[in-house]
Amino acid sequence: MDTTTFDAYLLQHRERLFEDYKDFLRQPSVAATGQGIVEMAALVARRFATLGASVQIIPTEGNAPPVVWAEIGEGDKTLLIYNHYDVQPAEPFNLWLSPPFEPTVRDGILFARGASDDKGELVTRIHAVEAWLATQGKLPFKIKWLVEGEEEIGSPHLHKWVEQHQDWLKADGCLWEFGGFDENGRFTLTMGVKGICYVQLRVKSVDHDLHSSLAPLAPNAAWRLIWALSTLKDAQENILIDGYKDYVREPSEAQMELLRRLPSEEDAIKQSWKIDSFLQGRTGLDALKQLYFTPTATLCGLTSGWQGLGTKTVLPAEATAKVDFRLVPDLTPDIVADLLRKHLDKHGFTDVEIVSYNGYRAEFCDVEAGIVKAAARAAHRIYNQEPVLVPNSPGSGPMWSLSSFIGGVPVVCAGISHADNRVHSPNENVPLQNYYDGMRYIGVLIEEFAAA
Amino acid sequence: MDTTTFDAYLLQHRERLFEDYKDFLRQPSVAATGQGIVEMAALVARRFATLGASVQIIPTEGNAPPVVWAEIGEGDKTLLIYNHYDVQPAEPFNLWLSPPFEPTVRDGILFARGASDDKGELVTRIHAVEAWLATQGKLPFKIKWLVEGEEEIGSPHLHKWVEQHQDWLKADGCLWEFGGFDENGRFTLTMGVKGICYVQLRVKSVDHDLHSSLAPLAPNAAWRLIWALSTLKDAQENILIDGYKDYVREPSEAQMELLRRLPSEEDAIKQSWKIDSFLQGRTGLDALKQLYFTPTATLCGLTSGWQGLGTKTVLPAEATAKVDFRLVPDLTPDIVADLLRKHLDKHGFTDVEIVSYNGYRAEFCDVEAGIVKAAARAAHRIYNQEPVLVPNSPGSGPMWSLSSFIGGVPVVCAGISHADNRVHSPNENVPLQNYYDGMRYIGVLIEEFAAA
Repeated sequence: MDTTTFDAYLLQHRERLFEDYKDFLRQPSVAATGQGIVEMAALVARRFATLGASVQIIPTEGNAPPVVWAEIGEGDKTLLIYNHYDVQPAEPFNLWLSPPFEPTVRDGILFARGASDDKGELVTRIHAVEAWLATQGKLPFKIKWLVEGEEEIGSPHLHKWVEQHQDWLKADGCLWEFGGFDENGRFTLTMGVKGICYVQLRVKSVDHDLHSSLAPLAPNAAWRLIWALSTLKDAQENILIDGYKDYVREPSEAQMELLRRLPSEEDAIKQSWKIDSFLQGRTGLDALKQLYFTPTATLCGLTSGWQGLGTKTVLPAEATAKVDFRLVPDLTPDIVADLLRKHLDKHGFTDVEIVSYNGYRAEFCDVEAGIVKAAARAAHRIYNQEPVLVPNSPGSGPMWSLSSFIGGVPVVCAGISHADNRVHSPNENVPLQNYYDGMRYIGVLIEEFAAA
Repeated sequence: MDTTTFDAYLLQHRERLFEDYKDFLRQPSVAATGQGIVEMAALVARRFATLGASVQIIPTEGNAPPVVWAEIGEGDKTLLIYNHYDVQPAEPFNLWLSPPFEPTVRDGILFARGASDDKGELVTRIHAVEAWLATQGKLPFKIKWLVEGEEEIGSPHLHKWVEQHQDWLKADGCLWEFGGFDENGRFTLTMGVKGICYVQLRVKSVDHDLHSSLAPLAPNAAWRLIWALSTLKDAQENILIDGYKDYVREPSEAQMELLRRLPSEEDAIKQSWKIDSFLQGRTGLDALKQLYFTPTATLCGLTSGWQGLGTKTVLPAEATAKVDFRLVPDLTPDIVADLLRKHLDKHGFTDVEIVSYNGYRAEFCDVEAGIVKAAARAAHRIYNQEPVLVPNSPGSGPMWSLSSFIGGVPVVCAGISHADNRVHSPNENVPLQNYYDGMRYIGVLIEEFAAA
């Protein structure tokens, strides 16, 4: 690879490419509401076409946001790239310092919904491929590009799509969305995700809310919910669902080695959260094992009865909870829902309804795969640093469908975010330098993956 | 008493008196917001003055709604009357079939906020006294009339006012607000109230809401609240707070006798609530003892984290609960708050804050007092039925301050409501016949109490 011509191209076309980036950001594409989804898929497909890629916009079930599929380059080796063109809703609008869909630069930082998650990474990769083709000739391997439009609502139709197109998806490595720099400017690569099962629970006890004076006779939905939830996890943080912990495995020696090398952020995190110690006094390697390799049971929301100011003497007829379970491999959302139903029934809570659940399976990838080594070497060359290798993410995404499910493609997450990226929040942003460096990083990554 | 002239007066002045009633209803007087409170107190005072009463508008602490105090008549015997001139907020306005402060008659039923609770009863009593004075001459005893303006927000300043005016309040019996006819048209008299302690609980676990993937390290406010609440009461409805049940006393033989005589409403209630059985299978006398004579612990509200549609993977930094405890005599709100604090601390929940609490003490009055007998005899004469005597109300009110606190004045609740009165709700109403009969009832009650 001739990095001089590659870099010169990026400099020469800097303004045009940046306008292209902003065009992506000006087009709303909110999966939760459907706003701009069709237009955005078309924009992504057109852009792939200008690279000379073969592009298809492929429907998903039930007229949901389509998958944009692109293939470009030839060779024995294949790199699968996963991105998404949808974004989180921009609300609350009043907290944005500039309109969310009018990309605005302040002090070298670009603000817009999707600037980072995930249009920033998608565009960086497109621009890097353009520069490669213009300056280095053909790609050294085949790129298969899957850009979905429902990541921000849990990718409800992606796995089915993958099932239907399995034979397309064979690859030697996968470059995932997200990633970037931590609070201390350390570049971070991640090789997995926890799964998730997000459950909505509901209790309905009587026909309508009653006067609270009737409590000696009338079943109270809020109490029923409290008692049911209190059987799921005890105050020492033990999850009490039969069979749930059977899925926990010790991390591999390679994963443990990465944990041992992780820089400690404990003091900074505790200061930010304003707590003296982590749950159960967890610290050091134990805290990291818990964070990256154990399943959770987390209350995300509780709703019942009177929630306004002051007093209202009501006996609630209905109570609901939102609970998320972060999962380890083989502990699937279906298994969690089944274990949970059995647990509730066993403890006498047949009246607690699992209204719905959805989620992703966990995926812990090979932390020593070629794509990981290539991503690390590219970080040395562009960012002049030893990247932080995180064996897994405590968060979740549809990685299993694009890895284990299709035969075990190793995955690495490498992005352009910085610590204060505000993704999913008002004033989402990316430092422009991260975008410029990010294009050079992808160029070098192409060379390194070809050699890996 | 000459009931012929009394009744003739009411008939002759029917239109004027009804307009007077409507004037009371047209004047908003919402304690929660302060709307119209000053004007309403003045209106009540002016009306008392037209009866020839000596009237005072007496401030309560901190510029809160004043007490209107009136005295009229002379004699060795004294009847204390308790009413309130404030009403519940009328929201949600869109559910009213006619505007809440424009009294409207449909099919012989008067609709307006306060039509029943408590302007209806206040006006009925004023009109009856007017008719007595016009047709029977002087009152046979002294009436002391206390009309407060904060009942709908828990009478926060009434007890202090009573403390400061104790020497005014001596009486032989007290006619309370509320009461009337049940679903089967049976006239009901009640001789007590449970107390209440309404508590707001809050847990704050970390500085701000976190991504739920951090659950293995970050304390979750919602879980802390769940665990704390689950120690207060078990799924068999046993309240587990040390010392709480020590205050429960067996009902007196006279109270038990009234319970035994109560008509069974169980099937109708279960049908309305859409349940097969009451809590813990309670039924018959046991259910009634629980309803009227045991203290409760009732969740009125739960709030934490994400409560909107769909999923949000948040670890809540804050969780709150509203809990009401209905109380038996001697179990005061202060005692409950103290027992609760000790309970939470003992179980390791020092992080669960009692943000505020307020309430009323319980008051179980003599069910065989003269005022009760007079009220029952008046029911025979006007409604031609044996009234249902309920030894106590499962609800609450500031009765203790006007009964035990001032030396044990026996109290009876006798009103003009019907079962579908919609008090505190849109379309509050009173059948006009209840108002017309109610004035005659009060006239006869005056005669009966004089003779008791």
